[in-house]
Amino acid sequence: MTATKKVLVIGGDGFCGWPTALHLSELGHEVVIADNLSRRAIDAELGADSLTPIASIEDRIAAWHELTGKTIGFARLDVARDLAGLRTLMLSMQPDTVIHFGEQRAAPYSMKGLEQKVYTVDNNISATHNLLAVIAETGLDPHVVHLGTMGVYGYDGDGLEIPEGYLTVFVPGDENRMYKRDILYPTNPGSVYHMTKSMDQLLFQFYAKNNMIRVTDLHQGIVWGTQTEETRRDERLINRFDYDGDYGTVLNRFLMQAAVGHPLTVHGTGGQTRAFIHIQDTVRCIALAVANPPARDGKVKILNQMTETHRVRDLAYLVARIAGAEVALVDNPRKEAAENELKVSNATFLDLGLKPITLAEGLLEETVEIAARYAHRHRADSVPCVSVWTDAQKPGTVPAASRIDTAA
Amino acid sequence: MTATKKVLVIGGDGFCGWPTALHLSELGHEVVIADNLSRRAIDAELGADSLTPIASIEDRIAAWHELTGKTIGFARLDVARDLAGLRTLMLSMQPDTVIHFGEQRAAPYSMKGLEQKVYTVDNNISATHNLLAVIAETGLDPHVVHLGTMGVYGYDGDGLEIPEGYLTVFVPGDENRMYKRDILYPTNPGSVYHMTKSMDQLLFQFYAKNNMIRVTDLHQGIVWGTQTEETRRDERLINRFDYDGDYGTVLNRFLMQAAVGHPLTVHGTGGQTRAFIHIQDTVRCIALAVANPPARDGKVKILNQMTETHRVRDLAYLVARIAGAEVALVDNPRKEAAENELKVSNATFLDLGLKPITLAEGLLEETVEIAARYAHRHRADSVPCVSVWTDAQKPGTVPAASRIDTAA
Ligand SMILES: NC(=O)c1ccc[n+]([C@@H]2O[C@H](COP(=O)([O-])OP(=O)(O)OC[C@H]3O[C@@H](n4cnc5c(N)ncnc54)[C@H](O)[C@@H]3O)[C@@H](O)[C@H]2O)c1
Ligand SMILES: NC(=O)c1ccc[n+]([C@@H]2O[C@H](COP(=O)([O-])OP(=O)(O)OC[C@H]3O[C@@H](n4cnc5c(N)ncnc54)[C@H](O)[C@@H]3O)[C@@H](O)[C@H]2O)c1
Repeated sequence: MTATKKVLVIGGDGFCGWPTALHLSELGHEVVIADNLSRRAIDAELGADSLTPIASIEDRIAAWHELTGKTIGFARLDVARDLAGLRTLMLSMQPDTVIHFGEQRAAPYSMKGLEQKVYTVDNNISATHNLLAVIAETGLDPHVVHLGTMGVYGYDGDGLEIPEGYLTVFVPGDENRMYKRDILYPTNPGSVYHMTKSMDQLLFQFYAKNNMIRVTDLHQGIVWGTQTEETRRDERLINRFDYDGDYGTVLNRFLMQAAVGHPLTVHGTGGQTRAFIHIQDTVRCIALAVANPPARDGKVKILNQMTETHRVRDLAYLVARIAGAEVALVDNPRKEAAENELKVSNATFLDLGLKPITLAEGLLEETVEIAARYAHRHRADSVPCVSVWTDAQKPGTVPAASRIDTAA
Repeated sequence: MTATKKVLVIGGDGFCGWPTALHLSELGHEVVIADNLSRRAIDAELGADSLTPIASIEDRIAAWHELTGKTIGFARLDVARDLAGLRTLMLSMQPDTVIHFGEQRAAPYSMKGLEQKVYTVDNNISATHNLLAVIAETGLDPHVVHLGTMGVYGYDGDGLEIPEGYLTVFVPGDENRMYKRDILYPTNPGSVYHMTKSMDQLLFQFYAKNNMIRVTDLHQGIVWGTQTEETRRDERLINRFDYDGDYGTVLNRFLMQAAVGHPLTVHGTGGQTRAFIHIQDTVRCIALAVANPPARDGKVKILNQMTETHRVRDLAYLVARIAGAEVALVDNPRKEAAENELKVSNATFLDLGLKPITLAEGLLEETVEIAARYAHRHRADSVPCVSVWTDAQKPGTVPAASRIDTAA
């Protein structure tokens, strides 16, 4: 069906990257993963661990080969720190597509303290910029697919639909004329992590314009679910499930709390509305993006990669109903609007044929197959969140509660 | 007159930083310079040198003390790489104001090659972010004054006046309603250097909002002139004059060419319009900014620090007339609009009482006192420019010509 491509997956050992690598390999693409395994190192640093028993990257790749006969390459590489290594890999592989997942992606981790803030900025900006600068210098011409987040837009919206990346505005000029302009949607990031994604947008804008690099930037909602068609085939391929205070997203933390009989802790009123997408749809969207590179027109193609929006308290009640748990409202450690509307355009992926998996359909399976099945592996002490957004919210005032939208 | 403040000047050994440090010291402020002397190291790397004979930072500070009895502190520190050193300095000094000049500021240098692109991004982003993250973590409360550039806006404007940082726009919504929004002026940077300044804006926006850090971001035009009231007092205090292909701004390069009897080389048609300010006005504006910190309202105060705009060819003819030189049009190594309009609001500094020095008045002095006087020190081989914006402009096609607006 699709033409075979050479695809480099940066961050391909991570939550989104691993199922993507498998899916693209399954579709017949030649896949190489570059990852510095920093996410596993952070697990060790935090004393947290995936609820699901994830195999080492070597065992994952070996299992996939054993099951399918297909080979996935692996290079242990820090794309933010090892510029020469990245350049060598790019020149030897000559990829048609580079999918860039290689960033520190937890908002609470990025707000933990001085070291984590600095690490998040240095790692994320250098990873993205090194890739673009190497492409510009080597004259290679891969299509770059990057994972951004819906969260760059902030959540203080006035209810206008968030378009796909660009906004048409009118600027009042002299003599009562209105000038029409097409601008990058103004961002309002709510954490250091989200800020790095806003900064990434400027990197892409410049290199698309100056070097005609083709970039698709996928502004993704919060990813939920664990398994995809490929990761489900063998336990050695299982995907990660984060539930700790830093990396666990709101839904995973609700599922975990339900599985261990803890009330589902909702921050503030739970009126925060967020965008969601199932991991199976994530990998499908990325395959669609890989198959449909943008024109070489100097403009970044920005797509919203999400399928539905929900209020956090509605999510809590949904999980509570399915899993038979209680819901408790606690103080919010974040600096964010208590209630917000969120309307998002995802027209492009729907046009390309995406048939979304809804939360209402998929949640039961997630509860039974993942949360309940692996509940015995959970560590109660890694659930509390300790990152606060400002000093006014320092410990004492912060409940040992679940987090909302850790990653989006 | 003004209250005495403790002022940390990051990058205080540079072209803008040194005269600023002297001026603030003269006004009675307690000044400490932090600089890693990277600019001097780049001079060595490029085999270029200031036309004026600049003294070492130690000799500069000793001369100032000898002349005035005033002490300026100095810490050799890389604020981008030495986070702990920056934190220690900030805690021990407890500055009221931090003026941040500590960035790689030449657009051509930032476009030279892979290493320079990566260095510019890593250095500039980490310098700015480290400062903000240290302030957030230590709970110190200095007013941060940062030097940005008019160049972030790009030069493809449709003739609308560039406001001070923010733009009021109208967004079409449902039912033919127009929603009014106040947004950060959308940037369109033309080089990796300018891109880092656009990214800096997002760093300031976030830390102002999240941590209530007070930030004044000065979007500066191209600085011309060499001496200020303070640097003129003794040759050991003399300021730098860059004329090489990377760091020399358009006017300095015209002055240098005139002084050595070379035709003034104008890129393209010379129809590019740019904003300018004299170094004496730069230091006055910064003193005004130091004396007028913004309210703690979560919003960055953005001011345009420029006093006049000129077309590059008009500048060339002005210098040609004063110094008796020829003008030659050559190919443009940059990717930029051949002709553009530029209208800029600088209402705030005018309201605060700034009386600008105009090019028409100041140029003769610059020609006689600097360019002609030190012409014997110039190195002909460091004048050609070698950085090109894209491969289509690789050597062969690029003339050994002067550059426009290196730094703005
Ligand atoms: N998970 C979500 O809900 C979600 C939502 C929106 C956007 N995203 C984005 O999708 C991308 C992937 O997210 P994820 O959930 O898979 O995160 P993850 O942390 O599970 O995976 C990221 C992977 O990148 C690797 N990595 C990080 N820095 C690297 C570097 N410098 N060099 C090489 N490898 C590096 C890590 O080791 C890890 O394997 C991220 O950019 C994230 O911001 C995720
Ligand atoms: N010169 C202009 O025309 C102009 C115009 C607009 C804006 N600006 C901005 O004003 C600022 C100062 O410009 P300039 O012309 O004085 O440049 P400059 O290169 O002469 O001075 C910059 C100084 O900062 C120091 N520095 C750089 N990185 C550092 C780091 N990581 N740690 C410590 N010190 C570091 C350098 O050693 C140098 O002394 C820059 O941010 C520049 O972008 C300059």
